[in-house]
Amino acid sequence: MHALVERLYPLCRSITGDGVRATLRILDEYLPLRVHEVPTGTQVLDWTVPQEWNIRDAYIADAAGNRVVDFAASSLHVLGYSLPVSATMPLAELRKHLHTLPDHPAWVPYRTSYYKPDWGFCLSQKTLDALPDGMYEVCIDSTLADGHLTYAEHVVPGQVPDEVLVSCHVCHPSLANDNLAGIAVATFLARALAEQTPYYTYRFLFAPGTIGAITWLARNAERVTGALPGRGGPGAGGSVQHGLVLACAGDRGRLTYKCSRRGDAEIDRVMRHVLGASGRPHRVTEFTPYGYDERQFCSPGFDLGVGSLSRTPYAEYPEYHTSADNPDFVSPEAMADTLAVCREAFAVLDRNRRYLNLSPYGEPQLGRRGLYDALGGRSDTKQAQMAMLWVLNLSDGGHSLLDVAERSGLPFGTVADAADALHDAGLIKV
Amino acid sequence: MHALVERLYPLCRSITGDGVRATLRILDEYLPLRVHEVPTGTQVLDWTVPQEWNIRDAYIADAAGNRVVDFAASSLHVLGYSLPVSATMPLAELRKHLHTLPDHPAWVPYRTSYYKPDWGFCLSQKTLDALPDGMYEVCIDSTLADGHLTYAEHVVPGQVPDEVLVSCHVCHPSLANDNLAGIAVATFLARALAEQTPYYTYRFLFAPGTIGAITWLARNAERVTGALPGRGGPGAGGSVQHGLVLACAGDRGRLTYKCSRRGDAEIDRVMRHVLGASGRPHRVTEFTPYGYDERQFCSPGFDLGVGSLSRTPYAEYPEYHTSADNPDFVSPEAMADTLAVCREAFAVLDRNRRYLNLSPYGEPQLGRRGLYDALGGRSDTKQAQMAMLWVLNLSDGGHSLLDVAERSGLPFGTVADAADALHDAGLIKV
Amino acid sequence: MHALVERLYPLCRSITGDGVRATLRILDEYLPLRVHEVPTGTQVLDWTVPQEWNIRDAYIADAAGNRVVDFAASSLHVLGYSLPVSATMPLAELRKHLHTLPDHPAWVPYRTSYYKPDWGFCLSQKTLDALPDGMYEVCIDSTLADGHLTYAEHVVPGQVPDEVLVSCHVCHPSLANDNLAGIAVATFLARALAEQTPYYTYRFLFAPGTIGAITWLARNAERVTGALPGRGGPGAGGSVQHGLVLACAGDRGRLTYKCSRRGDAEIDRVMRHVLGASGRPHRVTEFTPYGYDERQFCSPGFDLGVGSLSRTPYAEYPEYHTSADNPDFVSPEAMADTLAVCREAFAVLDRNRRYLNLSPYGEPQLGRRGLYDALGGRSDTKQAQMAMLWVLNLSDGGHSLLDVAERSGLPFGTVADAADALHDAGLIKV
Repeated sequence: MHALVERLYPLCRSITGDGVRATLRILDEYLPLRVHEVPTGTQVLDWTVPQEWNIRDAYIADAAGNRVVDFAASSLHVLGYSLPVSATMPLAELRKHLHTLPDHPAWVPYRTSYYKPDWGFCLSQKTLDALPDGMYEVCIDSTLADGHLTYAEHVVPGQVPDEVLVSCHVCHPSLANDNLAGIAVATFLARALAEQTPYYTYRFLFAPGTIGAITWLARNAERVTGALPGRGGPGAGGSVQHGLVLACAGDRGRLTYKCSRRGDAEIDRVMRHVLGASGRPHRVTEFTPYGYDERQFCSPGFDLGVGSLSRTPYAEYPEYHTSADNPDFVSPEAMADTLAVCREAFAVLDRNRRYLNLSPYGEPQLGRRGLYDALGGRSDTKQAQMAMLWVLNLSDGGHSLLDVAERSGLPFGTVADAADALHDAGLIKV
Repeated sequence: MHALVERLYPLCRSITGDGVRATLRILDEYLPLRVHEVPTGTQVLDWTVPQEWNIRDAYIADAAGNRVVDFAASSLHVLGYSLPVSATMPLAELRKHLHTLPDHPAWVPYRTSYYKPDWGFCLSQKTLDALPDGMYEVCIDSTLADGHLTYAEHVVPGQVPDEVLVSCHVCHPSLANDNLAGIAVATFLARALAEQTPYYTYRFLFAPGTIGAITWLARNAERVTGALPGRGGPGAGGSVQHGLVLACAGDRGRLTYKCSRRGDAEIDRVMRHVLGASGRPHRVTEFTPYGYDERQFCSPGFDLGVGSLSRTPYAEYPEYHTSADNPDFVSPEAMADTLAVCREAFAVLDRNRRYLNLSPYGEPQLGRRGLYDALGGRSDTKQAQMAMLWVLNLSDGGHSLLDVAERSGLPFGTVADAADALHDAGLIKV
Repeated sequence: MHALVERLYPLCRSITGDGVRATLRILDEYLPLRVHEVPTGTQVLDWTVPQEWNIRDAYIADAAGNRVVDFAASSLHVLGYSLPVSATMPLAELRKHLHTLPDHPAWVPYRTSYYKPDWGFCLSQKTLDALPDGMYEVCIDSTLADGHLTYAEHVVPGQVPDEVLVSCHVCHPSLANDNLAGIAVATFLARALAEQTPYYTYRFLFAPGTIGAITWLARNAERVTGALPGRGGPGAGGSVQHGLVLACAGDRGRLTYKCSRRGDAEIDRVMRHVLGASGRPHRVTEFTPYGYDERQFCSPGFDLGVGSLSRTPYAEYPEYHTSADNPDFVSPEAMADTLAVCREAFAVLDRNRRYLNLSPYGEPQLGRRGLYDALGGRSDTKQAQMAMLWVLNLSDGGHSLLDVAERSGLPFGTVADAADALHDAGLIKV
């Protein structure tokens, strides 16, 4: 995963343009992607797909022609969606278009201006301080024109058409944790899930933040409307049952799960359970309408059961949205850990069912069916036998296996194995 | 307010009679009052308006004719609703009619006997101890006869007919905290609310405790029945939506809010929020069916959302119901603080609405509407922008602005301002 | 109670057979019992009544003919439900049929094999270690043949046909705490309840564990089906409203109440309240589908409000299911304490009603009805008057007297007395 992060790092991504396309082409080597191109001007929910932005070169050169700031060195140097410019101006005039981080004088900030026409450069305070007064040549060789917004999907088919959506934003340029780490974890997660047919169908979405998620939602109404109880006409009901937004997935901090707007959606309960049972240091936070694309998936009209998994959440680390969020900032071990948690959580999600006890009056005789050690009177109990008793006792249609695991304190896997055995014996049904 | 307390202090109030009328006449100088006179014998709910009690003079004189206990010195000296008496008797006989506070030998207690015919005097233990044996002349020049029960109302008209009831008892004689302070705070609160048209209509009730509240409830059924969810026939529904009983509002103790019987009525939530957010030392207690007229408003048939605001609650300070509850016991600062909390609470109550997001699918594009700074990619957020996102996200008809403030942790005012901006932009509706 | 434990101790009880019958004959001297005999082969829910097991003698004798293990010394020495055997074999061969407790070398374990045909002996590790190699004569003079399962009932008639079920298992041989103490407490509890007609009808069940409870449930469907909300056809509804399983009721540990599966059944709330209010050291635990016959009563098809009262619960003391659980292990004081708690709990259960305030608009005038001291203005309150106000305020059909006691913090008895007084005055009705 770290190699993938390093490979994608130099590309200049934005919410549209060739940087996204180049990124998706590389991902396609790992995972066959279906790429969607949505024309500029398309109405998507309350928004409109903007013009496509592309950039070839940009620099500030001093009077001697030396490039003191150079896009070729880092895609962060240009304000995202900068209009083209070619001019010579005094430093005092140029300063209005320069962005720095005075508190971190060696770092270059990341800035964009998607919807307000502007141009600008981002540079370190140190570089700025070293610039003598005088005239500077500025050049941004960009185009902002009708084109397309690009996003991609990969689907891991499951046993049922109900879907789990895994989403990560692909619009940030040379920033590693935010969100090349999320992209890398999603990619390897999809490959792992495909190793054996999962229960749910898993849909992976690689799209620019905000406008990309909104575009996907607008074009996939049948997958997401009706997800909100009471909404949708007769027969409505989206296929997306659960989801996870992956972002900031590779720094060395502890894991953070941010709940869906519902707060008790199944994905929320699964993530809480898996993180708690795993013994990992972690944090579970309530939903807030700020952050990544959970903002869109959890808007009140959709209210999907979509949470967000990060290590250190956005804006809580100083390197956030600066040149210090580079490949060294993310660690292979952290990404592997994030991936492992996702796999553990989806393993629980995939096996979590509500069963109905077909022999609910008194305990069924397990011994007769070979399910229970026939030697009575023992003072010890075995977890597996306890799990069978718990599953039988709580399989009244109102409790899921996760409920059983939490109420009994038994490991989810033991409970799910017990349910399988009871199902095979004909004692419970879905 | 303290001047008003001092002015009202000498009057001998009771549950009926001229002391109440004199009190209301003074209040009318501050606030135009509508005075109601309800005849003796009127059936009011389970009760009957009693005979009217008036008193002109009362004393105990020793053999030399010296008044050793004199009503003219304090209205507390006579047992409330004492029958007239004119007799000479030995101290031993007289003692059966004397009330003292042995634990506080310098204080005079406050005692009444509204519904059991009796007569008596209240005096300090010290005075009693100094009385030599011998014959004493006792005189109570009172009348108990058919007449009226008197109460008054003042209404501050609002933008809607739904009402907030503010009630305080006016039946206690020379006691300052209980309840001249409550009367004073209510009076100045009404004046302050009238400075600009509030959202709700605010109804102020100045009535004797228990029987006064019961009388008002009996005569205002249309304002209060149907307030309980599920009660009332088709079209029923009282106009009183919220309420507050003001009592013991001027001592130097911390504020105490006692919840309505419902416990989670909107007034309860507002008071909790305002007291908590203000940083004031305070206490919120559960409802109990003892105390002041919240007992009547919160009886199970009405179950109104009426709480009670005090500083130190009844019976929790030693001066309670004694001559030590005099104007020195209440402080101008404490009354001003109680008034301020009421104003803060009603400011929240008045702006607390449930909105519906008209663009609930994904986030609406705030920047296009000038509601949101268009410069993306920043690592800081502003409270006002966060408030807009929170209001949009939770405006699903199920959350009030107070819910938004509490869930977001943002100040209520910021949230309400955001709602106003979104409402002006046509993004939400009530 | 302790004398009864000692008298029952030597008998060899099992899930069927003459040991149970002899036990019930002795209990019948204390309490008239109705004994039920259910033939082998009878289908009971998912189970079948097994063959009846009886045993007359059993021993292991050494080559010299000395009985080194002798059933006559303790009924624990034989594996419960052992098949008959008469053979001579070397110690090495015999060992496969011997059960010991290596961790407690002086104790004899208790073992059974009800549903898997087998034979065996239980002995102390010390005895086993002392056996020299050589040939041993083994004799188990038992019969396993068609017969009956035996259980008994005693009913204390109440004012209403609704029932409280008190159940204890009678299948354990020479074990004192498990469950002769439970049997003894149940017996004396039934006698105490009969001293005056209780509100509920109390049904005492003395039955073998698991199969006995299942047999009773199968034969008493009309008493227990429909107990689960939403179950049962029109008019369905079992008469068993509450229940308590008594087990391990005599050891010196603190009391433990295990909640019903519902967790908030009335019996759960009553036991929590009584144990909490009593100041006794105690523990309240959640339901688990393991333990005693609450497993059957709380299976999801019945889901009865049946909890379980023990001192130290099963398997939590080392003496459990060993010869160390002898009459010395249980104390007269502990059994008396368990009995006292049961009586306190049933006293609350019997008086716990939901009333409706017939004068719910404002407070009714208590003084007029002689219910309230007419002397107003006092600064003290009396618990009994407070209890009346609380009962009036919460008697809206939604609160039981236990709710009133818990919300008011007043003793349940005071609240119930207040309700009686208000009921007599015609102010509330059931």
